[in-house]
Amino acid sequence: MSLEAAVHSLDTLKSESMKSITWNGESLILLDQTKLPNQETYIDCTDWRQVAEAIKKLRVRGAPAIGVAAGYGLILAAKEAIASASDEVTQRANFLTFANTLKETRPTAINLAWAIDRIVTNIVFPSDALVTALPLIEAEAKAIDLEDQRLNAAMAKAGATLFEGKKGIRILTHCNAGALATAGLGTALGVVRELHANNQLERVYADETRPLLQGARLTAFELHHDGIPVTLLTDNMAAYVMQQGLIDAVIVGADRITTEGDVANKIGTYGVALAAKAHNIPFYVAAPYSTFDFTLAKGSDIPIEMRSADEVKCFAGTPTAPEGVEVLNPAFDVTPHELVSAIITEEGVLTAPYNKSITDLQKKTAR
Amino acid sequence: MSLEAAVHSLDTLKSESMKSITWNGESLILLDQTKLPNQETYIDCTDWRQVAEAIKKLRVRGAPAIGVAAGYGLILAAKEAIASASDEVTQRANFLTFANTLKETRPTAINLAWAIDRIVTNIVFPSDALVTALPLIEAEAKAIDLEDQRLNAAMAKAGATLFEGKKGIRILTHCNAGALATAGLGTALGVVRELHANNQLERVYADETRPLLQGARLTAFELHHDGIPVTLLTDNMAAYVMQQGLIDAVIVGADRITTEGDVANKIGTYGVALAAKAHNIPFYVAAPYSTFDFTLAKGSDIPIEMRSADEVKCFAGTPTAPEGVEVLNPAFDVTPHELVSAIITEEGVLTAPYNKSITDLQKKTAR
Repeated sequence: MSLEAAVHSLDTLKSESMKSITWNGESLILLDQTKLPNQETYIDCTDWRQVAEAIKKLRVRGAPAIGVAAGYGLILAAKEAIASASDEVTQRANFLTFANTLKETRPTAINLAWAIDRIVTNIVFPSDALVTALPLIEAEAKAIDLEDQRLNAAMAKAGATLFEGKKGIRILTHCNAGALATAGLGTALGVVRELHANNQLERVYADETRPLLQGARLTAFELHHDGIPVTLLTDNMAAYVMQQGLIDAVIVGADRITTEGDVANKIGTYGVALAAKAHNIPFYVAAPYSTFDFTLAKGSDIPIEMRSADEVKCFAGTPTAPEGVEVLNPAFDVTPHELVSAIITEEGVLTAPYNKSITDLQKKTAR
Repeated sequence: MSLEAAVHSLDTLKSESMKSITWNGESLILLDQTKLPNQETYIDCTDWRQVAEAIKKLRVRGAPAIGVAAGYGLILAAKEAIASASDEVTQRANFLTFANTLKETRPTAINLAWAIDRIVTNIVFPSDALVTALPLIEAEAKAIDLEDQRLNAAMAKAGATLFEGKKGIRILTHCNAGALATAGLGTALGVVRELHANNQLERVYADETRPLLQGARLTAFELHHDGIPVTLLTDNMAAYVMQQGLIDAVIVGADRITTEGDVANKIGTYGVALAAKAHNIPFYVAAPYSTFDFTLAKGSDIPIEMRSADEVKCFAGTPTAPEGVEVLNPAFDVTPHELVSAIITEEGVLTAPYNKSITDLQKKTAR
């Protein structure tokens, strides 16, 4: 399919719901999320390095979405590795180097490593030669993509069970855990879409999510686009709207969840969870099994990505702070499991004690 | 004094500490805080309407500062009222209309009404004619200014008593309660300056304070200017730095405090107070007697100013959210007294039960 045809087909898809990742058989077409909401531009990645750069620069972001993008990136990496040498050993070594570079683009979201490890371990390691593995890599990347869409749909149904018999529901969310963060309907916003489809949703309150404004630029954008009522807030208004009685539940996504149920998610999630607790508002996390790190117990062991000070000190090229001022810019924080009312997964809703419910999930989803 | 001379004299003052309000005998010179940190420009107000506009547009902001500015604005209002008619009755009526318009520029900070009422009640009502009251109005406006400077100094000393014998103190603050928000050293930042002078301060963590970024543009600016170590945070990082053990105490200013000790302050303060409580970090409010509303018991009765959606949806002319999205933009929130560890005033540190300690303050400060 030509790029033009691909973009045309994207437009058709987008009229249903936002589609940020499309593999056209030759290249990976990514919606450049850093340009939203002012421009809808697409990047045509024909080199895995473009995929790596897109992940690093947050042109594609959201834990499930970067897993899916990385999966497709490995097709491009395999093609380059095959072309790079005539012998299978060098081809494979080069492929693994490329895969590792892709894997190291961002440290916190586990879905990235999960998708790459899945392809490397299940397809590349058992295969005789990279050239024979190539169609299998492509099939597995597509499987990850399709699976994510199915996981989203299943989470949406599971999440809705938490609101059975309720109407006029007001949901607060932080960052973007929507169609733009996944291959499908979204995790947190998948549940929101389900509630909206069931006529149970009154409104979403979306934290703008500084410094990169994913809530304003992406969540408000995709909900507004889909006709779902949304009110935009600055992050520091979350406690206020809870105090005013405007929020029935918080639903957020996750970048990594430990076996004890500690949740790494976009910076600010922890503060929202504390405020929800203080107001007896349920705090739900929606995430597929690919977001769970079954090797890690404590949230404090999750690596937290520190990003550039410029993200905090500048906006659209205009300085917002005096030159020379020190800045802290952690991209994520960890919400301890005590503050998590339930975790919505494709296998149903997990509740405390999480070490038990998450171990059960691990057994169910073991491949 | 000419404007040039006044600006020169400001430069001298500023080398000591930020001076945002200067009366030169003819006009009120205001540092335009909306232009900081990128430009230091001054507005020469020769008409009380310019003062009203400056308050409304936040060119001068901070509860004590707008009280001081309004005091000087009344000199300009009185001059115009005197020139507006030949009879004393019309002059007085016009003055009261102007004073009322000034008073209604912003609803939440009580210092604005306090300063205007003080001049109207103490000077204008008892006087025979506005023309004879004029020098007294000017004297009272200057008295309010000088008093605010003294109150700041006294609060700084009182606040420091909370940290006796401690070193390496890390303070988190929200918005700007500094020299730019007052006529003097600042309320919360007055305490910070005292701790810094005593070699007790390690660092200030400043929330950037969306939507108008007073923390980034003003607090980081004035602390950095004065050589006080400061780290800038987005608002949603406050809970994270507390969780990381980086904060010993929170100190914020206030826009209005009720007799029960409920505190209206910049939006986001309430969320910070909740996070501080969850981490057993003391949450201090620094405010002079002029910030107390002795007529109001419950924080829920404080009028909360709602501001334009554009403040949230645009930055420096660039949209940060999709067109047509609904926005909530309360400029303040109310922190209930249960979350307030102590209130630092010029009369010393007030603690719970606040209805008693605040009644005592009222008696001490009754004029």
